[in-house]
Formats: sequence, C-alpha cells, structure tokens
Amino acid sequence: MTLEAIRYRAGSLQILNQLLLPHQTVYDEIRSVQDAYEAIKSMKVRGAPAIAIVGCLSLAVELRAGAGGDDPVTFIRESLCHLTSARPTAVNMGRAARELMEFAENESMEKNSEQLRESVIAWIEDMLERDVNDNRKIGNYGAQHILSGVPRDSVTILTHCNTGSLATAGYGTALGVVRSLHALGRLKRVYCTETRPYNQGSRLTAYEAVAEGIPATLITDSMAALTMREMDITAVVVGADRVVANGDTANKVGTYQLAIAAKHHGIPFYVAAPSTSCDLSLESGRDIIIEVRPPEELTSINGVPIAAPGIEVWNPAFDVTPHQLITGGIITELGVFLPSELQAALTGRLTAL
Amino acid sequence: MTLEAIRYRAGSLQILNQLLLPHQTVYDEIRSVQDAYEAIKSMKVRGAPAIAIVGCLSLAVELRAGAGGDDPVTFIRESLCHLTSARPTAVNMGRAARELMEFAENESMEKNSEQLRESVIAWIEDMLERDVNDNRKIGNYGAQHILSGVPRDSVTILTHCNTGSLATAGYGTALGVVRSLHALGRLKRVYCTETRPYNQGSRLTAYEAVAEGIPATLITDSMAALTMREMDITAVVVGADRVVANGDTANKVGTYQLAIAAKHHGIPFYVAAPSTSCDLSLESGRDIIIEVRPPEELTSINGVPIAAPGIEVWNPAFDVTPHQLITGGIITELGVFLPSELQAALTGRLTAL
Repeated sequence: MTLEAIRYRAGSLQILNQLLLPHQTVYDEIRSVQDAYEAIKSMKVRGAPAIAIVGCLSLAVELRAGAGGDDPVTFIRESLCHLTSARPTAVNMGRAARELMEFAENESMEKNSEQLRESVIAWIEDMLERDVNDNRKIGNYGAQHILSGVPRDSVTILTHCNTGSLATAGYGTALGVVRSLHALGRLKRVYCTETRPYNQGSRLTAYEAVAEGIPATLITDSMAALTMREMDITAVVVGADRVVANGDTANKVGTYQLAIAAKHHGIPFYVAAPSTSCDLSLESGRDIIIEVRPPEELTSINGVPIAAPGIEVWNPAFDVTPHQLITGGIITELGVFLPSELQAALTGRLTAL
Repeated sequence: MTLEAIRYRAGSLQILNQLLLPHQTVYDEIRSVQDAYEAIKSMKVRGAPAIAIVGCLSLAVELRAGAGGDDPVTFIRESLCHLTSARPTAVNMGRAARELMEFAENESMEKNSEQLRESVIAWIEDMLERDVNDNRKIGNYGAQHILSGVPRDSVTILTHCNTGSLATAGYGTALGVVRSLHALGRLKRVYCTETRPYNQGSRLTAYEAVAEGIPATLITDSMAALTMREMDITAVVVGADRVVANGDTANKVGTYQLAIAAKHHGIPFYVAAPSTSCDLSLESGRDIIIEVRPPEELTSINGVPIAAPGIEVWNPAFDVTPHQLITGGIITELGVFLPSELQAALTGRLTAL
C-alpha cells in the first residue's frame, strides 16, 4: 500500500487530515481556495512543499468549476495572495505563487478566459507531478549512492523528523530515499527519532512506515548516538528546510546533534532536498535566522501539561548543520553532491532547466 | 527555600510523592516498612540512593515504636529482605541491607533488644546524614573544579535527567554541583534536558529549579548540541548509575550523545557520583548490561497514546559513556578524578574509610 496524503483527480481534491494522525485516518474534501487556506492555517496539511501543492491544487479545483468568470487573472491573484498569507514563513507557497502569477499574466495576453483557465490548471497539475517525480529521483539517487559504498546486502538508515509523503506532494525526500531502498529490497531497517517537541517522527514517520510495511523502529532523540554504536547504522539521512551556497543546512532542531554523532561514529551523513530548497543567495548558515517557537510545544502534549509549572523554556524549531558535517553528500533531483560541489552543480543545471 | 524530598524526625517519616509531581506537592506519611515497600514499588520515591534511605528510615520508624519485641534481629532481617525485593535492580538498597544486617548481628552479641534497637536507629540516621554530607562534598568539589578553569564571574551548566534532592537523600549529585554554584552566586543558568522518554528533566529537575529559584531553562534532548554552540556552556555535568574501574560510566540514556557533543564543542564533561556508585569489580563499560524497558514509555504519556499504533520501539534506559569522553573528570565526595586516576584514588581511600 502506498500512503496518499494528497488525493487529486481533475476537479476533486482531498487531503489526509494530519491533525487526526496517527490515531484516525480521515480525508477532508478541499472544495475551494478558502478550504485550503483553512487546512493550511490549522496545520491539517504541513511541510513546505505540501502546503504549496495543496494551495495551488485548490485553485485548480475552483478554476475547473469556472471560477473567475471573465477575469480569471484577478481571481488567481487574489487567491494566491490569500493562500500565501496562511503560513507566511512557508517559502514554497510564496515561490509557487510568484511563478504561477507570472505564467498566468503571460498567458492572458494571448488566450481567452476559458483557455487561460485550462493552461493554469495544466501548470498546477504539472507542478504536482514534477514534485513527486523529483522526489522519486532524490530517492533513487540517494539509494544508489548509499548502496555504492557498502558491500552488504542490506542497509540500516537513521532518519529524523518527517520528510515523507505527508510533507511533500508524495514519496518524500529523506524518507523517499528510505522508500527507494525498501523498494529495491535492500532496506534492513530504518530508525526514526521521535523528534521532540512536535513529535513528527513518532506521529507521522512512524505512521507512514506502518502504513507501507517499511521495517522501522522508533527511538527517542537521545538514543540516536547509542543506536549508531549498537545497530550498525549504514547512513544518516535527513531533509532540509534550506540549504545555502556553502552547503550549510537548516533543518528540524536535533539535526546538528545527529550530524556530530554520525561524524563521531564515522557514519556518512546525507541531506536530501529538492534543488528548490537550495538558496544560493545566502553564503553560509550564519545568515539563517532560527525561528523560536512557543514554550507550550515542550511543556504540554495535546493541551495536557507535562512539565513543572513556571520553568523557563528555549524552543528553537531549527538548527544549522555546518557543511563539514555533511559527509555523505546533498541528495537532489539532479544528483548527489558534496557541499563544496553544490553551488557549481546547481548554478549550471538550474540555468539549463 | 530548600526542597525536602524526605522529611525525617525521630519516629516520623514523610516523603514527597513523586507520582504527583510536578502538578501537586503532596507529602505521604510512611509509618511502616510496608508503607515504604509500597512507595518504592509504585515509584512514589525513585533514584537508587533515595530508595535505600527511605527503606532504612521506615525500619527506624518501626524500631523506635518497639517493633521486633524480644527478637529485633529477625524483624530487621525480614524487613530488609522485603524492602530489597521492591525494586530488585536498585543496588543501593541491597548494599545498605547487607551492611546494616552485618552491623545488627554484631551488635546483637553484646546488647539487649532495647540497646540494639537504639544502635540500629543511630546507624540508619547516620546513613541519612552521611548521604547528604557526601552530596554536599560532591557539590563543593565539583563547583570549585569547574570554577578553577574559568576566568568568568559566572558559569552556565548543562545537565541531564534528575540527580537532585528527589533522587538522593537530599542536595543531589550533578544537580548538587549546580546547587553549590548557585549558592556561591556563580551560576548564571542551568540548561536542563527534558530527558525522554520518562521526562525526569521536565518533571523533576525543572520542579526543583523552580522551587529553589535556580535560574533554569528547559530544552528538548535534541537541542543540547545547539545549546552548547549558542549559549556559552561552561561545562556539562551528569550523574551516574554506575562508574566502572576504567571510568566508563552507565547513566540515563542520552548521556553518551551529550558527551560526544561536548567533546565536539571542547566543553568539559563531568560525571558526579558518590564513591558508592563506583563499581571497581567491572573493568570496562562493555561489561555493563543495558536494561531495555517497555515500549509504552515512548508511545504514551500518562496513558494517552502519542505515537502511530503498530510502530516497533527500542527503549534502552541507559547508555555507557566511554571514559575518553569524560574530559572534565569524575566528581566524588573524595575529590575530582580523571577516569585514569579513579581506580587508584578509590582503592586507597575506600580502604581507609
């Protein structure tokens, strides 16, 4: 069984409600841009790529029903503006909105309203397909790279947070690499950290693994180094929120600590991310601002307090892993690169795209 | 305010019920050995030193009321046997039982029942006082050692799990070092990991810090490396479940990962433990068997499920930190030793004790 987080058929969109996971598997119908806005804002859907896809697909659903009438460009502009405001920090939605708006404006010069709707819908459907295909390429490149270094029949991977079907249009980035290894019959086991404080590992990655029959073991974040020493880990593979020009990578908090432990044990450490997550405008990780989130994420679970009242809390959501610790490489849909090769590789290839 | 986890006056014993922490502060009366047995078994009191102290004090309470009649030795033997069975893995209770039994048998040769009761009560009360005094010595030795290496006015400490008044007869081991630094006016702040999966950090260490006004910040276990890089950590100080002859140390899971991160950042890493936690009969940490606990500790909190149903779990309770990573030293009531000095230091001094 393949987990479908986003179900799209022409004119119809459903999303797996992540607020109810892992205890209930419920698909919510998204009939309008407003439905998508609310689903994104309430975090029924999360993960920067998934947010952008769901937002744009909801627009496609409305356009197919004839939304925008004689002036679809205005409708598209207002819809994208609204969608982008739901989670202002999710850069992928903003980038998709800019690209789609530029496309729609160009098309509007030559086409009537009906033709414009058709071509915008096609652009959005292509975006969905491209994201899944890119993830499959990431999965395959990553799996081959990891397997090329080991004489063994099967490999054991350690991963962090959720980077699977639930965070992307489908398949996933780091978890896509795990899926590819499993599909090749070469995955012995994946160890998933629970990923405090928001528990994306125990709620979402564990859910995906159980749903697809991927052999997986849940550990606390504090057990990762012990797992590396005791469980013959072949490679650590994580996702990325942003990779900058020198290869420094911002990702879910705890990634930096995993990279240090991997280095200590001589285990290759990989970052898996589409080239759209690479931001060559920043030179090094020092330029990345770390988002600090509310204390309640640590001190309560589902609204129930779990910590001593009155304790101060520091809750950074991300950390930056210096490129020196990314010893395996950066896995993109264009191939696997060392941090030092990334800028040249992407500059050349992205121009050609 | 000083947190009292164990309230003992001649003939009266109360313990702070740790099952209700941090949300309720309730002292339970311990009137008998059976009361203590039940409190230990249900984990109202936890931490190996605290278990031994509460068990023995409950015996003192009964003896003061005349328990054992004309044959106190039999009563003492049966009581200690019962107490030891409550948590068989807590070595301190077993050791205290052996020492106390030997003492009682020797005394019984020269003394009548009433005199025997008096001298056994005195032995137990001395044990309580000795444990607190040893912890204060650990605190002071540790504080001086840490301060001797820094030119700054104040220091910032990172600690793990709970090693304070709630785990000992009072004051604490690693948290005792933090208390001493605070008492000297030299503690800027202590960062406490929440210590998954049992949350001793967020529940108990945070509770002690708030109760005593120690400046403290709670972080997830995954944030420790980032905290070391961003928060100018002076030293990492943890407790120990067992220190073996070469200095390898078994402690709460996650300690090994902290030691690796501390080494990466060039931050001194200390273990604080009474000499009674040092087990010179084992040569290296390879001889220590790691207890694996039930999956439910990870997958639920207070009985409420928090992970995807069906996921496999690995839940080792402890890990072993190799002596090479204990770069600051091992802080005991006899002084601070490098791992390589420990065996000689303890062999000489323990003989003299």
